[in-house]
Amino acid sequence: MTIKLNQNERLDELHRNGYYIIQNPGKFCFGMDAVLLSGYTKVKQGEKALDLGTGTGIIPILLEAKTQGKHFTGLEIQEESADMARRSVSYNHLEDKINIVTGDIKGASELFGAASFDVITTNPPYMTNSHGLINPEQPKAIARHEIFCSLEDIIRESARILKVNGRFYMVHRPFRLAEIMTTLVQYKLEPKRMKLVYPFIDKEPNMVLIEALKGGKSRITVEKPLIVYKEQGKYTDEIYDIYGY
Amino acid sequence: MTIKLNQNERLDELHRNGYYIIQNPGKFCFGMDAVLLSGYTKVKQGEKALDLGTGTGIIPILLEAKTQGKHFTGLEIQEESADMARRSVSYNHLEDKINIVTGDIKGASELFGAASFDVITTNPPYMTNSHGLINPEQPKAIARHEIFCSLEDIIRESARILKVNGRFYMVHRPFRLAEIMTTLVQYKLEPKRMKLVYPFIDKEPNMVLIEALKGGKSRITVEKPLIVYKEQGKYTDEIYDIYGY
Repeated sequence: MTIKLNQNERLDELHRNGYYIIQNPGKFCFGMDAVLLSGYTKVKQGEKALDLGTGTGIIPILLEAKTQGKHFTGLEIQEESADMARRSVSYNHLEDKINIVTGDIKGASELFGAASFDVITTNPPYMTNSHGLINPEQPKAIARHEIFCSLEDIIRESARILKVNGRFYMVHRPFRLAEIMTTLVQYKLEPKRMKLVYPFIDKEPNMVLIEALKGGKSRITVEKPLIVYKEQGKYTDEIYDIYGY
Repeated sequence: MTIKLNQNERLDELHRNGYYIIQNPGKFCFGMDAVLLSGYTKVKQGEKALDLGTGTGIIPILLEAKTQGKHFTGLEIQEESADMARRSVSYNHLEDKINIVTGDIKGASELFGAASFDVITTNPPYMTNSHGLINPEQPKAIARHEIFCSLEDIIRESARILKVNGRFYMVHRPFRLAEIMTTLVQYKLEPKRMKLVYPFIDKEPNMVLIEALKGGKSRITVEKPLIVYKEQGKYTDEIYDIYGY
């Protein structure tokens, strides 16, 4: 199959079902956070999943490969990223399984309707606009800083869009954990499972994976740690498992 | 020095400043949680610290040994435990540094007054009354289940008793983490530091240590993990450090 790649775009192999993804290294490439989120997310047979802020579509494409979900939607505000995502979907012949929608997370519940999805995933911008330097490259800035939407916007919209007992999965930075927990509880998405990702066993965690249940009771399982590196440059077996190598 | 030990009581060495503690193994003995909390708590020179639900006084005694704090108070509702704590304080010649008060956590802010302490510590009951079997041995039951006070009681009273920028330290079970975070934030004790205690590196954590700051801004440091055992029956160096052996 031929594929149209725009300037600076490349086609990267995903090592899952023979799937590929189009990325532009000058703009934004997916990171380990997206891969770990796709490994943490459970989409059951027949379920419909929505990815908020899908970028180049990495999460819907990985979830389609890894789960028995029925249908996957990715919402992305940047038309250029959405277009790359659509071309990747098409290249992988996934048009019947994955739909990429251009639109704003802040209006997502109006766009999709209340109680319309079983699962929501999101790998949102980690930084508020007061955290650190804003990247002048627009797509990177939008992926990293809360320019178009805040954590509360994402959680509020997710709470509306999920069915009762629907599940919300997010990867984020641990420094915002208290805010994440309180905002989830405020919108009745009860945190049920959490995993901290430690780069090394003797270092602070740099990612947190969270599962919340719409309408759940208060009780969370903090899971065994996920350690990324055995030693400098050498991944642990669990990381290889998640990547599927 | 002679000491009066009641039936079934014993005198245990603390391996800190030559201090001892009176305990009754039939009632309740302190555990690793109290020791880890005393290692996690910072009491600076000249500061006054209050331990809510002090039991036999293990935390004030260890903090007096480990820190430069000026004065330590322990509040305990069970007269029998408070009496043991007072005899331990006396045996260690710490009457000028540690005061054991018999009283109810629910009325603690009335007892001590608003903004009266720099530091609060607590190793509260972990279980609500709906969690698991209630131990029929009363002192154990009171130490383990929220019979006399709830998590919210403790946090509400602590928020009142602490000075602005005062610090709240608690050890608890991870399964209540979402409730802990939301209740702390509700009472404006902002979670600033958190450490998960994993019995083994490949197991779920069974304790969480938290530091909250009265009036702090939302940003938490999740610290490197504390692993208890290197292998079955063999503590890690970090645990030996905290115990001071």
